[in-house]
Amino acid sequence: MTHHPSISETGLGSWKNAPAVIGAAVAAIDTPALLIDLDAMERNIEEVHSAIHTAGIAVRSHAKAHKCPDIALRQVKAGAVGICVQKASEAEPFIDVGIKNILITNEVVGVRKVERVARLAALTHMGLCVDNIVQVHQIGAAARRHHVAIDVYIEMDVGHGRCGVISADAAIEIAQAIATYSPALVFAGLQAYHGTAQHMREPEQRIQAIKKACARVKEMIAALGAAGFAVNAVTGGGTGTYELEAESGVYTEVQPGSYVLMDNDYQKNTPDNDMPILKNALYALCTVMSVSPTHAVLDAGLKAFAVDSGLPKITTPGWSVQSISDEHTTIVSEHGATALKVGDKVKLIPGHCDPTVNLHDWIIAVRNDKVEELWPISARGALF
Amino acid sequence: MTHHPSISETGLGSWKNAPAVIGAAVAAIDTPALLIDLDAMERNIEEVHSAIHTAGIAVRSHAKAHKCPDIALRQVKAGAVGICVQKASEAEPFIDVGIKNILITNEVVGVRKVERVARLAALTHMGLCVDNIVQVHQIGAAARRHHVAIDVYIEMDVGHGRCGVISADAAIEIAQAIATYSPALVFAGLQAYHGTAQHMREPEQRIQAIKKACARVKEMIAALGAAGFAVNAVTGGGTGTYELEAESGVYTEVQPGSYVLMDNDYQKNTPDNDMPILKNALYALCTVMSVSPTHAVLDAGLKAFAVDSGLPKITTPGWSVQSISDEHTTIVSEHGATALKVGDKVKLIPGHCDPTVNLHDWIIAVRNDKVEELWPISARGALF
Repeated sequence: MTHHPSISETGLGSWKNAPAVIGAAVAAIDTPALLIDLDAMERNIEEVHSAIHTAGIAVRSHAKAHKCPDIALRQVKAGAVGICVQKASEAEPFIDVGIKNILITNEVVGVRKVERVARLAALTHMGLCVDNIVQVHQIGAAARRHHVAIDVYIEMDVGHGRCGVISADAAIEIAQAIATYSPALVFAGLQAYHGTAQHMREPEQRIQAIKKACARVKEMIAALGAAGFAVNAVTGGGTGTYELEAESGVYTEVQPGSYVLMDNDYQKNTPDNDMPILKNALYALCTVMSVSPTHAVLDAGLKAFAVDSGLPKITTPGWSVQSISDEHTTIVSEHGATALKVGDKVKLIPGHCDPTVNLHDWIIAVRNDKVEELWPISARGALF
Repeated sequence: MTHHPSISETGLGSWKNAPAVIGAAVAAIDTPALLIDLDAMERNIEEVHSAIHTAGIAVRSHAKAHKCPDIALRQVKAGAVGICVQKASEAEPFIDVGIKNILITNEVVGVRKVERVARLAALTHMGLCVDNIVQVHQIGAAARRHHVAIDVYIEMDVGHGRCGVISADAAIEIAQAIATYSPALVFAGLQAYHGTAQHMREPEQRIQAIKKACARVKEMIAALGAAGFAVNAVTGGGTGTYELEAESGVYTEVQPGSYVLMDNDYQKNTPDNDMPILKNALYALCTVMSVSPTHAVLDAGLKAFAVDSGLPKITTPGWSVQSISDEHTTIVSEHGATALKVGDKVKLIPGHCDPTVNLHDWIIAVRNDKVEELWPISARGALF
């Protein structure tokens, strides 16, 4: 019935294949490509996990930052008790590589979604968050239908102003609803993530924010305890504040995500004196596709870089990013910068790692300017 | 070797499947999902194609906006001579459904990329743009290697300030280089796209911009003609200015892309009095996942909406988008607006269609509040 020749007849590999081969030089990678500097990533994992483990609490790495099972396996190998994801579908590629403990740090609403969570709970230890009894009834019914047990965390708003209960009364009502679904639902503890605090630029701002968050959590624990609900776990925290939650005496588990990659936005945080500065590990390799007397143009734009937290930053000395459009980034140079020519390859640091990774299908893991591993971003597009 | 059960054993369909079934009500679609209002899309295609065809010139629809072969087939059925894409890899899913004439409206740099173009040229009529002789030598060598003929358009900067030659001397040097690769390379004409003009808000601004672009093109045609290079085609234009290129007497082909979908940004253009207002056809369906006394939260964020051209706009009366983060959109209401509850579904209009479509795997084509067709976004992620 088809009258047209097929791509497969050309011998041309699909563009969905990795844009590199193992062992090749970085300069031979097709562009635009996401690179991870393995030395930097490994150092970041070591720094963050050891700081949290030294405080005697658990690391549960947030996989929403990388969406990449190969990275999650390294995080678990480095002591993470499991991972967090933001969506039920996002859990699947991680379950497929054997991750045994996954918390959806988000409310899950809708028949198809709770059905998905319940079925996944038959494969691995699953948890999710609730901030409303409607959500409890949905997941409770699905868990019963599938004869599984699911950990349920009550999300509380600790200052971020997005999801989460504020009052103890609301939390108690939810805990009571969870109890009616026992043993299908297990009240596992509190989700207490302060997203805004991650990006506060000064250490003192972050310290105060997490101090207030901890005070709210303690009040909530007391109120739930008085109502007969013991809180055995408090989970939250991120790359901007992990050492604060770790040393708080309140949190039992920290959820850093971006630490493994980093980005321009996180580099704008002034580090606490006591803390190591995490290294940038994520880059995008691009090719100069056009040059003019006033500027040069790279072969990557809004379809390769998320710009919600600012433009990407080029690492070539004397050059800076001027503007970005769907498939182009325009760069300009200071007087005296080395000229770039058509075909040159350059590296950029994304403004915001999570949504940038979500635009790509592969991460190219590099060390000493060579491709060491090729990692599919298997959870890319997992929106459901 | 694997010790873990597999997702496929659960009977759970992959989340990569379409989030809807044909014939279902819109309210039954899993979220976040991109919807196309078929009535609006069909009217837009009819309006734009008939305006351009009435002027006696060709429509070459730009597929970078939708990345969706089902839409391209409808555009060709409505008289488009072929399509444009921005990347070599982006052409492949369209070739696979039988599109016969594809222009890459972009410079193509790199060995793997020109190899791809040359191999695709054995399957379909291919063209690309150049603004530098380095690009000519790369594609010329690949075309010779594969014994194919490729149309080459010299891109000129007509005011956008990104890619494209400015001087006639540069264009002539490139035309001479193209001629040395005859018959493998064919000098096909000029690419003259004024991207900035598409988003100028007032009709008079757009009129003046395209008038200047046309003057530059005429000078270039004269200079190339004097050097012995006849310009048989001038291609460019877009959704913001298509009627101006159509009536210019200079352009032979217009490349509208967004017209089929539209977005908030294009709706900010004040329309010309003479022109029909194109209808918004693209929406994202989202679910209310959390409610509080001050706001509600939707289950879609930066991984479902590109925000380079502003936040998405909710269509629910009295509600507006306050902020967006990776997986959440926070909405707030005016006094008197109907309350939303957990599980309610709402529709949002994206700020910028192209990079938003690039975040999704499916477009759900709807009419009369029912799912009529399910279209894979097959060129999503085609960055190479």
